[in-house]
Amino acid sequence: MGKILKQINQPNDIKKIPVEEYDRLATEIRTFILKHVSKTGGHLASNLGTVELTMALHYCLDLPEDKIVFDVGHQSYTHKILTGRKDRFSTLRQEGGLCGFPKRKESDCDSFGAGHSSTSIAAAAGLALARDSRGHHETIVAVIGDGSLSGGMAYEALNNLSEFKKHKTNMIVVLNDNEMSISENVGAMSMYLGDIRSKEKYKKLKDQVEQHLNQIPIFGHGVSKTIKRSKDSLKNFLIPGMLFENMGITYYGPVNGHSIPDLIHAIETAKKHRGPILVHVITKKGKGYLPAEKNPEYFHGIGPFDLKTGKALGSGGVSYTDVFSEHLINIAKKRKDIVAITAAMPSGTGLNRFKEVFPDRFYDVGIAEEYAVTCAGGMAANGLRPVVAIYSTFMQRAYDQIIHDICMQKLPVFFCLDRSGLVGADGETHQGTFDISYLSHIPNLVIMAPKNDWEMRSMMDFATDHDGPIAMKYPRGKAYQGLDEYREPIVLGKSEIIHKGEKMVILSVGNMIEESLKLTDLLKEKGYDPGLVNVRFLKPFDKELIQELSSSYELIITVEENLKIGGFGQMISAYLYETGLKCDLLNFGIDDCFVDHATVDCQRQWCGIDADSMAARIIERIE
Amino acid sequence: MGKILKQINQPNDIKKIPVEEYDRLATEIRTFILKHVSKTGGHLASNLGTVELTMALHYCLDLPEDKIVFDVGHQSYTHKILTGRKDRFSTLRQEGGLCGFPKRKESDCDSFGAGHSSTSIAAAAGLALARDSRGHHETIVAVIGDGSLSGGMAYEALNNLSEFKKHKTNMIVVLNDNEMSISENVGAMSMYLGDIRSKEKYKKLKDQVEQHLNQIPIFGHGVSKTIKRSKDSLKNFLIPGMLFENMGITYYGPVNGHSIPDLIHAIETAKKHRGPILVHVITKKGKGYLPAEKNPEYFHGIGPFDLKTGKALGSGGVSYTDVFSEHLINIAKKRKDIVAITAAMPSGTGLNRFKEVFPDRFYDVGIAEEYAVTCAGGMAANGLRPVVAIYSTFMQRAYDQIIHDICMQKLPVFFCLDRSGLVGADGETHQGTFDISYLSHIPNLVIMAPKNDWEMRSMMDFATDHDGPIAMKYPRGKAYQGLDEYREPIVLGKSEIIHKGEKMVILSVGNMIEESLKLTDLLKEKGYDPGLVNVRFLKPFDKELIQELSSSYELIITVEENLKIGGFGQMISAYLYETGLKCDLLNFGIDDCFVDHATVDCQRQWCGIDADSMAARIIERIE
Repeated sequence: MGKILKQINQPNDIKKIPVEEYDRLATEIRTFILKHVSKTGGHLASNLGTVELTMALHYCLDLPEDKIVFDVGHQSYTHKILTGRKDRFSTLRQEGGLCGFPKRKESDCDSFGAGHSSTSIAAAAGLALARDSRGHHETIVAVIGDGSLSGGMAYEALNNLSEFKKHKTNMIVVLNDNEMSISENVGAMSMYLGDIRSKEKYKKLKDQVEQHLNQIPIFGHGVSKTIKRSKDSLKNFLIPGMLFENMGITYYGPVNGHSIPDLIHAIETAKKHRGPILVHVITKKGKGYLPAEKNPEYFHGIGPFDLKTGKALGSGGVSYTDVFSEHLINIAKKRKDIVAITAAMPSGTGLNRFKEVFPDRFYDVGIAEEYAVTCAGGMAANGLRPVVAIYSTFMQRAYDQIIHDICMQKLPVFFCLDRSGLVGADGETHQGTFDISYLSHIPNLVIMAPKNDWEMRSMMDFATDHDGPIAMKYPRGKAYQGLDEYREPIVLGKSEIIHKGEKMVILSVGNMIEESLKLTDLLKEKGYDPGLVNVRFLKPFDKELIQELSSSYELIITVEENLKIGGFGQMISAYLYETGLKCDLLNFGIDDCFVDHATVDCQRQWCGIDADSMAARIIERIE
Repeated sequence: MGKILKQINQPNDIKKIPVEEYDRLATEIRTFILKHVSKTGGHLASNLGTVELTMALHYCLDLPEDKIVFDVGHQSYTHKILTGRKDRFSTLRQEGGLCGFPKRKESDCDSFGAGHSSTSIAAAAGLALARDSRGHHETIVAVIGDGSLSGGMAYEALNNLSEFKKHKTNMIVVLNDNEMSISENVGAMSMYLGDIRSKEKYKKLKDQVEQHLNQIPIFGHGVSKTIKRSKDSLKNFLIPGMLFENMGITYYGPVNGHSIPDLIHAIETAKKHRGPILVHVITKKGKGYLPAEKNPEYFHGIGPFDLKTGKALGSGGVSYTDVFSEHLINIAKKRKDIVAITAAMPSGTGLNRFKEVFPDRFYDVGIAEEYAVTCAGGMAANGLRPVVAIYSTFMQRAYDQIIHDICMQKLPVFFCLDRSGLVGADGETHQGTFDISYLSHIPNLVIMAPKNDWEMRSMMDFATDHDGPIAMKYPRGKAYQGLDEYREPIVLGKSEIIHKGEKMVILSVGNMIEESLKLTDLLKEKGYDPGLVNVRFLKPFDKELIQELSSSYELIITVEENLKIGGFGQMISAYLYETGLKCDLLNFGIDDCFVDHATVDCQRQWCGIDADSMAARIIERIE
């Protein structure tokens, strides 16, 4: 650990360090982050880009009284290092360790949790309104990336800040502009910010223009006011950030986000301002680590890597994302009506490859899940077959659109929910364990989960032929390639029997097939011979089969990596009562709680859905 | 029916009418709408405001080839009248009759359904992208109100239209600016539009300024380009709508929305434009009917009313909304930390009265449910106790925020879901029948439903004392005032026993208490004596009681006005299996389908949750 960094052990310790040494401290922090993240994995590029910004904020504010709200929160490592969590940094994203995102329960310096995008201005607005309501005076800062600004909620918040001006409610928005979300930005706002950046060049010219304007002679009486007005207008126009000014928010910037004196000056100025103010800070993602500067998308979220070469460690292997990506291209080659949509995740969803092959049939709409879904609805209503690939946890943003714009109209949109189920190190904000619960009650929607790579491809063929809304959920990580001999054709609402067995039968949902096979083995060791069914369709589920099973077996066991409440098992329990079928039932799924960061294996143990826990529970039940 | 209107019987018939007669036709349409809506109820003010706009669109477009996407759709009556649905207008919003919103299954002239806000630009964008992808050439128009522009999704769509400019994708956005959403607008966008309207006055001055600018002498070489640039800038600035121009969307307007020639000229101009164009149309809500012009909020959505006086017919009575409204004021008088938030529904949620008493503790954030929820989270994190009142169906928009920003952090936000359950005439887009399903699987959230007005007040007392996220769902319409003698204190997770009975017991959720009492009577007539329990807490539900009941009764019956999938009954079925309790179970709720418009009584019959249907089913089950 660097010499200066050693002196920082609790909030506000940074203020004891002479400002002249801040640049050196920044270097030490970068080295520290690199050392740890190369071992633990984590969000690298965004954290390297905001070292100076965070230091300047901590210099100017008094935490925890003053409050910083980080958007997404994947840039909060320096903040954690500066608030007494430095020594726990080797535990980052691991069981019982530091979370990769800000978390209220972790520190009182984390004023609001995050993980999803575009929430910080709204949360900070609430903090500020409450502060004024209670007669307090702390400084409130929202830090938001330019990518997060494409999310509608950020705009809803900006739109509401105009009211703050009226009531002199103070609040600082730091726009951390690194010209990227996870991948390249899209849309008007990002063009507009680019425009501001390039306008810097015109600063000198602007002064010249103003000088000349002052020399314009004034004509007759009635017009003079107008000319004065137009001079003001011209000045305004030449001030970067007029879009924000038009929205009632004072604009300050752009500021060099790697110059600590400039940042301190900007934040101190903003602190004195009455009403809402936006400080536009320009940073470089990956700053200070060449491989990350060159390829910030690759180093956005990364597993352990070799610090020297920047190459990822670990085996890799073919992921479900890879299988999806490759097979969608195959389908699209035959089907001209297939188009692909994602929300700022071309690389994460694998659609970057689709984009290469079909640039005109690929749409990255930015961080804008609601738009992605309803726009897909429009496409489907006009003859296309859109495939919308979004992480399970982010699809939550479009819950109402899936109901109102897609399923109510039975439009043929194919939803591909990547990172469904437990996600491991990203933790509770990113768990894809809600999707069965939030999708299965939506009328007209078909929901599938594949057991392995072959089945994923087959389900994609099926889905793109299906005349209505359909969703497929699949997990993060390696695609299972076992059970390859089980290739029963995909039929709507039909399950696949893997093994007949007797007395008890396991209904396994999607990626839980591996755990279910282990479970089968454990039970066999105990002398049982459980049946095994690959569920395939969560909705409509295979009612005919359930009827058969309930008469041939004594116990039905459901296994899913989803919340129990609203999950597959719960639907089966209701069905058994509805039909009066006599059969015992045991549901395995995630209990009614949020699941912290850890490895997926560990998370499964916590939830009692690892093979050992399930076997023990089953034996307890039947013996 | 007016003489001209008589000649209009199918799409495009309006083109046969000489344009000189359009003003008279507009009057006839208004008279027609007033006559019918005063009998059926419906959305009045918004429809009266868009008669000329819709006529002009139908004059300029060829339906159904060309496509109009209405936002929310509460302004689509003229469109329905002009597309062959005039003769069915007396059936509006009634069982089997015309829907109050555009509906693809009702007419091929309804290119995209609506009901919720801020979807039209996204849907139209999808239609336009699909058109280009297929090499077609139809005109695509999104009609959106200025109120709907405060919804984040509208911004996400506008932000994406900049890409359209690059690819020369044509699309027209008609901004129907009536200076209102349902109530007064809030936020920067609405201020900005107001600014444009007032700028009209400066049009002449602008011409003068331009003239004078042309007389400015040009200084030396290097500066001349800059001066030219600044002239362009100045022109731009004086053009209203530069905010949209900055976003890459050509702006046209403002246009008088009640002048048919102006509208036709504007739409024809927009049709010729390459790329996205926004036509800014100024209309007056309630136009042509004085009571509605004076009080457009009252006439936004209204039941049958007296055409002469504008007064509502029907009994009225005290609604749940009234009880909520009044009691929240009582609580807030004692508790300074209580603040109230709504999303453009101050009158619908009853919070307008709260606003009168506590103007500084009331926040209407516009149509921005996501912001409303996360901002409330910020307030709660900084010491306030925010009460968020939003209709059940619109709360769907904030599903992710409730999980990620509130419940994950256990913040004490009180969600009040008005219009929960079946809503009657507004139909499938507005049904509040999803809330138990989308809320009950969220960890840390408490969910309640009151049986009557007393209980609602008691639950509000309980909720504002509860240290964590909590929701209360209550239906549209009159508050039940029966069972007033049952005043068991509210205890977390505890139900209330109304009647002991024997053999079977009914678990009744919230407003279904009336139907459950009727059901009890019907069963008594048949010689049974069913027990009756008021569930109160959907989550955590009363596990102890379920254990007792399952041992004392043969059959548990659950009754809820929510989808069966993910509903209360389903949770009970899972619980019975989980604990191995031996008891039969019968769940009543809404089947897996969207429920069309009709009276609530009729909708209950369709769903088999009226007392008669339930009694028949129970008897079938037990005999």
